[in-house]
Amino acid sequence: MGVVLGDNSYGKSGIRLVRVVRAGDRHELTDLTVDVALAGDLADTHRTGDNAKVLPTDTQKNTVYAFAREYGVDGPEAFGLRLARHFVDSQPAITRSRVTLAAHGWSRLGGHTFTPAAGGTRTAEVTYDGVRAEVVAGVRDLVLLNTTGSRFAGFVRDRYTTLAEADDRILATRVEATWRHAGSDVDWDDSHRRATEALVGAFRATDSDSLQQTLYELGGAVLAACPELTEVRLSLPNLHHFLVDLAPFGLDNPNEVFWAADRPYGLIEGTVRREPDPA
Amino acid sequence: MGVVLGDNSYGKSGIRLVRVVRAGDRHELTDLTVDVALAGDLADTHRTGDNAKVLPTDTQKNTVYAFAREYGVDGPEAFGLRLARHFVDSQPAITRSRVTLAAHGWSRLGGHTFTPAAGGTRTAEVTYDGVRAEVVAGVRDLVLLNTTGSRFAGFVRDRYTTLAEADDRILATRVEATWRHAGSDVDWDDSHRRATEALVGAFRATDSDSLQQTLYELGGAVLAACPELTEVRLSLPNLHHFLVDLAPFGLDNPNEVFWAADRPYGLIEGTVRREPDPA
Amino acid sequence: MGVVLGDNSYGKSGIRLVRVVRAGDRHELTDLTVDVALAGDLADTHRTGDNAKVLPTDTQKNTVYAFAREYGVDGPEAFGLRLARHFVDSQPAITRSRVTLAAHGWSRLGGHTFTPAAGGTRTAEVTYDGVRAEVVAGVRDLVLLNTTGSRFAGFVRDRYTTLAEADDRILATRVEATWRHAGSDVDWDDSHRRATEALVGAFRATDSDSLQQTLYELGGAVLAACPELTEVRLSLPNLHHFLVDLAPFGLDNPNEVFWAADRPYGLIEGTVRREPDPA
Amino acid sequence: MGVVLGDNSYGKSGIRLVRVVRAGDRHELTDLTVDVALAGDLADTHRTGDNAKVLPTDTQKNTVYAFAREYGVDGPEAFGLRLARHFVDSQPAITRSRVTLAAHGWSRLGGHTFTPAAGGTRTAEVTYDGVRAEVVAGVRDLVLLNTTGSRFAGFVRDRYTTLAEADDRILATRVEATWRHAGSDVDWDDSHRRATEALVGAFRATDSDSLQQTLYELGGAVLAACPELTEVRLSLPNLHHFLVDLAPFGLDNPNEVFWAADRPYGLIEGTVRREPDPA
Repeated sequence: MGVVLGDNSYGKSGIRLVRVVRAGDRHELTDLTVDVALAGDLADTHRTGDNAKVLPTDTQKNTVYAFAREYGVDGPEAFGLRLARHFVDSQPAITRSRVTLAAHGWSRLGGHTFTPAAGGTRTAEVTYDGVRAEVVAGVRDLVLLNTTGSRFAGFVRDRYTTLAEADDRILATRVEATWRHAGSDVDWDDSHRRATEALVGAFRATDSDSLQQTLYELGGAVLAACPELTEVRLSLPNLHHFLVDLAPFGLDNPNEVFWAADRPYGLIEGTVRREPDPA
Repeated sequence: MGVVLGDNSYGKSGIRLVRVVRAGDRHELTDLTVDVALAGDLADTHRTGDNAKVLPTDTQKNTVYAFAREYGVDGPEAFGLRLARHFVDSQPAITRSRVTLAAHGWSRLGGHTFTPAAGGTRTAEVTYDGVRAEVVAGVRDLVLLNTTGSRFAGFVRDRYTTLAEADDRILATRVEATWRHAGSDVDWDDSHRRATEALVGAFRATDSDSLQQTLYELGGAVLAACPELTEVRLSLPNLHHFLVDLAPFGLDNPNEVFWAADRPYGLIEGTVRREPDPA
Repeated sequence: MGVVLGDNSYGKSGIRLVRVVRAGDRHELTDLTVDVALAGDLADTHRTGDNAKVLPTDTQKNTVYAFAREYGVDGPEAFGLRLARHFVDSQPAITRSRVTLAAHGWSRLGGHTFTPAAGGTRTAEVTYDGVRAEVVAGVRDLVLLNTTGSRFAGFVRDRYTTLAEADDRILATRVEATWRHAGSDVDWDDSHRRATEALVGAFRATDSDSLQQTLYELGGAVLAACPELTEVRLSLPNLHHFLVDLAPFGLDNPNEVFWAADRPYGLIEGTVRREPDPA
Repeated sequence: MGVVLGDNSYGKSGIRLVRVVRAGDRHELTDLTVDVALAGDLADTHRTGDNAKVLPTDTQKNTVYAFAREYGVDGPEAFGLRLARHFVDSQPAITRSRVTLAAHGWSRLGGHTFTPAAGGTRTAEVTYDGVRAEVVAGVRDLVLLNTTGSRFAGFVRDRYTTLAEADDRILATRVEATWRHAGSDVDWDDSHRRATEALVGAFRATDSDSLQQTLYELGGAVLAACPELTEVRLSLPNLHHFLVDLAPFGLDNPNEVFWAADRPYGLIEGTVRREPDPA
């Protein structure tokens, strides 16, 4: 029997980078977690332990810190592009890089005082193959909740269905969204702001018959607000809030008292794409 | 050999309560996690399994939900007081109750749309012994960071000391604070707001030679802002941010690029009390 | 601008199922976490909120529990196959199902007493498209550590490389492995046992010049032990253990005292496939 | 208004220490997480930022690693005693130390290959005041489950009670136990083994009418097996496993199919003490 090496990559994950820019009394704070993954002509290290083509993951970590000082950190997408290009362009054996970044937002409380921002974590994933760089931006852990404007009815009933129809329920989710850029000549901060505002605005505005419908509206709103994007992927857990039955205690419960469940939860995932130009 | 039963308690933990009040198009959202612990004449259930004096923990959970409908939820301290009194006053065998509450804050995004608030989690612990109720309020997971205004120097050096003195470092912590009320006739929301603002204001204002000094300033500021309190306890992890040595790459690092460490971390804990009235 | 719906799925995640079989005084315990994801003709619920083709995720949960009673639970792979087939075969709109299962192992301490087993969590992912079922089995959170027999040297050095060569280091990882079955007529328990033993045996036996080499050996060993498999995917974090520099305290450190780092960590991922039959 | 400093301490937490002893081909592995907390004459650093009496937490960390090389690590209790004594005896300002240790167990898979052990994490807390050292040992995250031999009936019923009596239920808990030693001239490993075996044996043997009864039996069994102990404290979450109602699907459920709940959970806590000698 013979075996062959298939897809593979290696790199350093969980690189924690904090950068402070001190413009007089008003400091700026950048806080990233960076993962690097490299692929290429790496059969030797797998088959024989010959590491002559292996740039150590420790070096990848050093590069992240050195680049932060040499070039600054102008947002996760641009910093990721710089890193992704560097590893492929400088290492003959490396033909593909993926840099994944989470930007931990901080809110300003003073000239040099900060507290973590609400609103989820901004993410970016940059891939580069020596010719083309691709940027997928996004957000995760953005929790949104509507206390009304959500229903779920008219569904399939089989032998195992006991669920009652709901004509007014709490809808809560923890948005994980990624959106794919058509190019890389983008005002990244502005694009991310428009995409996120579109997401939140659509969640607020959608009168929803299913979380799937909400997903489709969210994806469409992001594409409408951001012509620079080609598609949006959404992963929306349905964080169930169940009405408590208070009848045993002689009490009604007019959609007022709920318990929030941990598990199980619904999980709705989908992609919304821009329709190809007919021209 | 004989054994005796010492201190003991039992109860339900992790009760997740979400309440929606619908005043026209503007909804109000309350989100609590409640823990109940009861103590009293419970030797029988321990020694023989006779449960005749045991109010089930399931009943405690039901009571939390029923009370939310019957009496509303006017903040964690007041809701906790109501629950703590109920269990002792209604159960002959129960002589002491402790109700611990975490209030998960939500920020309004619309009339009925919410997202988790920044700024840590508001907490309350209410104890009641049939005569006297005691309220300890607080906050946890309130992360604060100063990019300057912190030093650490002049410390003891022994055989195992290698730490360099720092004349300008990042100071970051995750505040866990509790403050003890002298009484229970309090505007709880207003008191909590004043205490938290004093904490944050003191963190911002303190030019700090040690995290201990910051702790003392934070405690003093809360007591100054809140005459209704008798003491403040603070647990302040020192979330280390280390300057990266870029010299091997031919780069300086003028207090700009840091790595954020997970473990180990410093931990500074202390209580600040109001000086007893000499009269 | 038009938008179109791309790939999508929906289902219930985190279904916690515990089953007890009582054969006299010797009980058997099965403990699974099950995730269901369904895909098919679901454009209507996304575009208009028409749920006429949507089998509720609550029903999927009910089905898991009912099947456990109706058919028993003969391992995660077989139980997953039964569920995956059911949803597609019984729902006209559903054309593809994916059932993911984690089997939480328990060790016997007595006829009816158990404690969680060591050795990671057994996993299975079953997909079915109405014609063909595919089973990918595996393990996760299997932590393995060698105190010797690992080196890392001869690697690329660029401007950002400071890492010293290591001729004897601790090698620790948390294995996440999945292996793809060629068919579904398999003795699943026996296959899983052989694959896991091969993994562990190869880790123990490999004298390693890189974690990539270890990965390749592990994959090859599993394929050698299990002719019923076509490929093995491995994700191996490098859980760094760094030698502590004790020289400042006048002490040597002959590969004895280490600190275990949380982040960053290396991450080595790769697939090892059986070479296609030349015939 | 004046404020005064109350109880306070400071130290380093989360120190990760791994030690390898290489006796030929058979290596021994020790893995500890150590927390140090010191208290004493520390008013100056709190009030004025004068650190002249502050031994840095970084030094405490260094001391842990240096002591591991200088003196070895002969179990968490003995290593903790050595550290606790050192800080008070060597630092004039420090009058009290507390060293908390978690020993992460590893099972041997070969001469130099290990995997994490089942059976919870061994813990120790050592305090020293310059005269007397006190050792509290224990275990945490020891999950135990009985599939039968547990009932809960005959309890109080009030207006909010809906719970049905259970004459045969699953009893599952995650034991956190600590036991206090009368002295410090103890064979720590042997004592810990006897205590843990007594815990597990009592859990297996107890036919239980309440988790409180189980707690009392567990505590008594540890005291009976370990005359060197004065008291045992137990914290026992009741990890609920609920019988699934399958009647809507035309199925019975003869105590076979359960769902495991995350929250809320019961929490039973108590201390069992050795009865003072009447002599």
